[in-house]
Amino acid sequence: MASGRVIVLMGSASDAEHAGRATALLDRLGVPWSLHVASAHKTPERLLQVLAESERRGGARVYLTIAGRSNALSGLVDAQVAAPVIACPPLGSGSWAPYDLASSLRMPSGVAPLVVLDPENAALAAVKILALAEPGLAEAVRSYQAAQREKLERADAALGGGAPE
Amino acid sequence: MASGRVIVLMGSASDAEHAGRATALLDRLGVPWSLHVASAHKTPERLLQVLAESERRGGARVYLTIAGRSNALSGLVDAQVAAPVIACPPLGSGSWAPYDLASSLRMPSGVAPLVVLDPENAALAAVKILALAEPGLAEAVRSYQAAQREKLERADAALGGGAPE
Amino acid sequence: MASGRVIVLMGSASDAEHAGRATALLDRLGVPWSLHVASAHKTPERLLQVLAESERRGGARVYLTIAGRSNALSGLVDAQVAAPVIACPPLGSGSWAPYDLASSLRMPSGVAPLVVLDPENAALAAVKILALAEPGLAEAVRSYQAAQREKLERADAALGGGAPE
Amino acid sequence: MASGRVIVLMGSASDAEHAGRATALLDRLGVPWSLHVASAHKTPERLLQVLAESERRGGARVYLTIAGRSNALSGLVDAQVAAPVIACPPLGSGSWAPYDLASSLRMPSGVAPLVVLDPENAALAAVKILALAEPGLAEAVRSYQAAQREKLERADAALGGGAPE
Amino acid sequence: MASGRVIVLMGSASDAEHAGRATALLDRLGVPWSLHVASAHKTPERLLQVLAESERRGGARVYLTIAGRSNALSGLVDAQVAAPVIACPPLGSGSWAPYDLASSLRMPSGVAPLVVLDPENAALAAVKILALAEPGLAEAVRSYQAAQREKLERADAALGGGAPE
Amino acid sequence: MASGRVIVLMGSASDAEHAGRATALLDRLGVPWSLHVASAHKTPERLLQVLAESERRGGARVYLTIAGRSNALSGLVDAQVAAPVIACPPLGSGSWAPYDLASSLRMPSGVAPLVVLDPENAALAAVKILALAEPGLAEAVRSYQAAQREKLERADAALGGGAPE
Amino acid sequence: MASGRVIVLMGSASDAEHAGRATALLDRLGVPWSLHVASAHKTPERLLQVLAESERRGGARVYLTIAGRSNALSGLVDAQVAAPVIACPPLGSGSWAPYDLASSLRMPSGVAPLVVLDPENAALAAVKILALAEPGLAEAVRSYQAAQREKLERADAALGGGAPE
Amino acid sequence: MASGRVIVLMGSASDAEHAGRATALLDRLGVPWSLHVASAHKTPERLLQVLAESERRGGARVYLTIAGRSNALSGLVDAQVAAPVIACPPLGSGSWAPYDLASSLRMPSGVAPLVVLDPENAALAAVKILALAEPGLAEAVRSYQAAQREKLERADAALGGGAPE
Repeated sequence: MASGRVIVLMGSASDAEHAGRATALLDRLGVPWSLHVASAHKTPERLLQVLAESERRGGARVYLTIAGRSNALSGLVDAQVAAPVIACPPLGSGSWAPYDLASSLRMPSGVAPLVVLDPENAALAAVKILALAEPGLAEAVRSYQAAQREKLERADAALGGGAPE
Repeated sequence: MASGRVIVLMGSASDAEHAGRATALLDRLGVPWSLHVASAHKTPERLLQVLAESERRGGARVYLTIAGRSNALSGLVDAQVAAPVIACPPLGSGSWAPYDLASSLRMPSGVAPLVVLDPENAALAAVKILALAEPGLAEAVRSYQAAQREKLERADAALGGGAPE
Repeated sequence: MASGRVIVLMGSASDAEHAGRATALLDRLGVPWSLHVASAHKTPERLLQVLAESERRGGARVYLTIAGRSNALSGLVDAQVAAPVIACPPLGSGSWAPYDLASSLRMPSGVAPLVVLDPENAALAAVKILALAEPGLAEAVRSYQAAQREKLERADAALGGGAPE
Repeated sequence: MASGRVIVLMGSASDAEHAGRATALLDRLGVPWSLHVASAHKTPERLLQVLAESERRGGARVYLTIAGRSNALSGLVDAQVAAPVIACPPLGSGSWAPYDLASSLRMPSGVAPLVVLDPENAALAAVKILALAEPGLAEAVRSYQAAQREKLERADAALGGGAPE
Repeated sequence: MASGRVIVLMGSASDAEHAGRATALLDRLGVPWSLHVASAHKTPERLLQVLAESERRGGARVYLTIAGRSNALSGLVDAQVAAPVIACPPLGSGSWAPYDLASSLRMPSGVAPLVVLDPENAALAAVKILALAEPGLAEAVRSYQAAQREKLERADAALGGGAPE
Repeated sequence: MASGRVIVLMGSASDAEHAGRATALLDRLGVPWSLHVASAHKTPERLLQVLAESERRGGARVYLTIAGRSNALSGLVDAQVAAPVIACPPLGSGSWAPYDLASSLRMPSGVAPLVVLDPENAALAAVKILALAEPGLAEAVRSYQAAQREKLERADAALGGGAPE
Repeated sequence: MASGRVIVLMGSASDAEHAGRATALLDRLGVPWSLHVASAHKTPERLLQVLAESERRGGARVYLTIAGRSNALSGLVDAQVAAPVIACPPLGSGSWAPYDLASSLRMPSGVAPLVVLDPENAALAAVKILALAEPGLAEAVRSYQAAQREKLERADAALGGGAPE
Repeated sequence: MASGRVIVLMGSASDAEHAGRATALLDRLGVPWSLHVASAHKTPERLLQVLAESERRGGARVYLTIAGRSNALSGLVDAQVAAPVIACPPLGSGSWAPYDLASSLRMPSGVAPLVVLDPENAALAAVKILALAEPGLAEAVRSYQAAQREKLERADAALGGGAPE
């Protein structure tokens, strides 16, 4: 049986570091993924072929689309597949970041990519979604969340950790 | 067997119209939902109890959190559950909309609500996710997407509809 | 001989009024145009067919792409055709306008739609471009520009119109 | 008798430097403080326990909440305690600063954290508030303000310092 | 003994409605207040006299400064008094609101007005502060907060009110 | 002897109402003015002629330039005349206002229009400047400022008007 | 016969690097260009002479205007010539970039510069336009676009390159 | 006879470099100036004394106010003097610059500081104003403007300098 997987689509090879932060967490939580480069602007025909083939294979899958600046990729992918699409645009830290973000969110009716800014968080959300098909993954999510809590509690304990007097 | 469902959480009773646009599509696509009011700021204890009970019941579920202005609800819910959380903040049309949006997206590590702006689109995304547990829902998604395409094609045909000379 | 023409592509039938302000000027300056509805997100296959056919027919042509919110249409069209593409997004007057604008401008390398905000101005720019193939159109442009100047001079004359004392 | 104090709550251990700029002034003005790490998103149960205990102990107290990005901490704390809450978000210098700020200010009715951007200024405001319970602190505030004035007057005197001719 | 009070200073008589939303809550919670018009730009001498007199009278007091556009009032008042100053700028709903806000927050060192956007919330914060001098007021704050919670719980109960199945 | 005057230049006849708010105060303070329409974009030759003639006539003069959207007029006029130029762009209340403003302020070296947003305030500033050549105008400025102060003092007196108890 | 050419006008000699990124692509695609410095603010008379001479010579031409901050150059040039004008403002990466952009786009009626942000993309758009007069250039455009696609396909192939399993 | 002069008021000694760029041009154009530190927030009484003394001395004068962040200085000074006030806020290059700018411009009625962003340009504007009282200064302004033009013409000549072929 085809197990759940994350299909990572980058709009440019230069997004590889951003994508790598997502796939590192997928590896840690034991979720298979594949990585592809395709541009909604420049290679839409190839992209449509790839999406059609991917949908035909079936199995639980989540798309993770990574495209900066004017993000056409996430909306195009979402409208072509029945699977959920997480948009994780690499916005950088410059003055255009809040403006570029809008291109991932301001969608027409019937186009519904799910936006998460941090790539590690985007991977976590993908795993939460895949857990609907593979309930064992829910345990991995809970462990990850517990580790986050423990990190905070240890930091608090290092400061004394009781209630304020 | 508990079928998949969407848990809609509103931060205020005044968000009911926004939520209603999401639940109308859930009804149309045949997905059960329930609607609740809870504030991360004002009633966090009650909210935590509700989330704990909900998680114990299990079954495929997606949370849809609807809170305007400074959105604390989506992040708090996401960090407390293993299920996916879609944040659909009612931003309104005023000058604060792009600023309020940031409170739904600028999350710390390990907190990963999925943001969709339009409530009908948010419902569509929820159904795409639930389809991982109930593959029959994928057909409903595809039908909805096909209807969107046909609407465009009819509009184009009404203008003459061939390729440009 | 196929004369120069403007291919107006709208992302949604609801952009018809915005497009109509452009085609009204094309009519006035005697430039043929055709009007189409196609979505880069929802109907990319159909859009690609139409563009391929249009390019095969050849002849002087300018594309005028009209798509609001997250504008994927202008970049996709520009990357698929050798002809110039003018993007004229209907931004409306709300708080998202300056943010939505970025999706028409923040393009990757090799994707170069030309942005003009006002639809009548976009039509004027299209005629300026077509005048490279049909020099007679340059006269129409100069007349239009002269009419603009005269309107200002009449307004100034109505105020007395000499140099300031 | 329990003297007045400032309860500093950080959303993350990485906010320690920002908090340290506030506590340095509290030390200088002789006001006791305690420092804690707690996340409204990740550890709300623990946070609620700590707030409940703190409120039971009573005595004059001001909460100083320090949480960046989407600030859920300040609103949650404010709605749970009768004491005043000063929000001092570490906004950094990047392009998201004006957007993140909104999450500290755009509160629902009945939730009223008091926002001050600079951590040393936030500490000064906390001391002004505690002076309502301990009038001796008003003298410390006045001395601090006088020192600010004298610094300006010395700088002016160094430039010549009279009235402009 | 002079009881605690709120000194409301408006930069213009046109701010009276905004101020009235704050004083209505002060009345409801039983806190005395007075209302004044003074401009940091136009009548600074008169303003300084009033502040000096007010400070001499002593007693627990909180200043509530209400000035729109470029807000010079809040910073000037804060730097001249030992009492806490809450800035509640009437920002309106237009495109300048997020820009005007900065003038209430971007203060130099040693100037620390406390910013709250909603006038009713600003009044609540003022009462929280005065409760440090008059512990009886803490009860009024807790009742107000409890009423807020109950309103939410009633709204949730009206929707069915249990945990999600 | 040519007395001081204000030369009001509008980029479009549609700016007449905005200009009228400035000239109304000039009339009230007894300062002569003339009103012209000229576009830096469309009629630069005519504009340059008018400026050259105006400069030749000499006498104390201040230019008041009123052009919305992308304001090329203020910078062009300022760089061509030795007299001071006040830019008073009609920004309107929409979402572009803070963006359009930049075109009046972000000038290259050696181009120095003086920006004032409100047209009545712009007229006041013009009179302050002309008072350098006609000292009698300083009295008119002081009277106007005194009237502003008295209006505030009357509003304060209507509220009771003493110092806060 | 005068072949098609690009007239590059810079508002300042400091824009030379930005312009050089455009002319490098023009060289590569075999399109002649000339480079000039002229300021709409400071040297409008000279600029108008140059434009008048240029228009008299005729031949297929596209103007490429490069002016930062408040961009008056692009609009003035566009209104004076019948040829198309591409505005490519050097916005830099600082906080003013989205604000300065507006001065290139927010044009009055009848003024229609075409905005492209990246200088290499602006050059590509210029060549697309010149191809209307010299159809041979269309081949150069198609080759450039094909090279862009091949670069993406190679990057995808390096990652494995098939459809996702 | 007291000659015209520029009174430079800085809100903080840390603004000295910004002020120095203005006074360098005043020196070059032969205009006397004096430099002072005074804060509208912290030392308003001293500031008011200085302004009163300065106004009593009379003579042609322009105030140049330099205060960053929330600029209360420019508006307070303008409302207290009959002379023109140029506000030249040191905005820096960070993300708050466009927001801080509003505090220099969004003034109430009757308060009319004149805003110029670049300190050298602000000095030029001050000299233009003083030239109304000392016509000899107009020559200095014209020479400075001519030097600006010549610099551009030399840069154009270095590129070949004729009209485009």
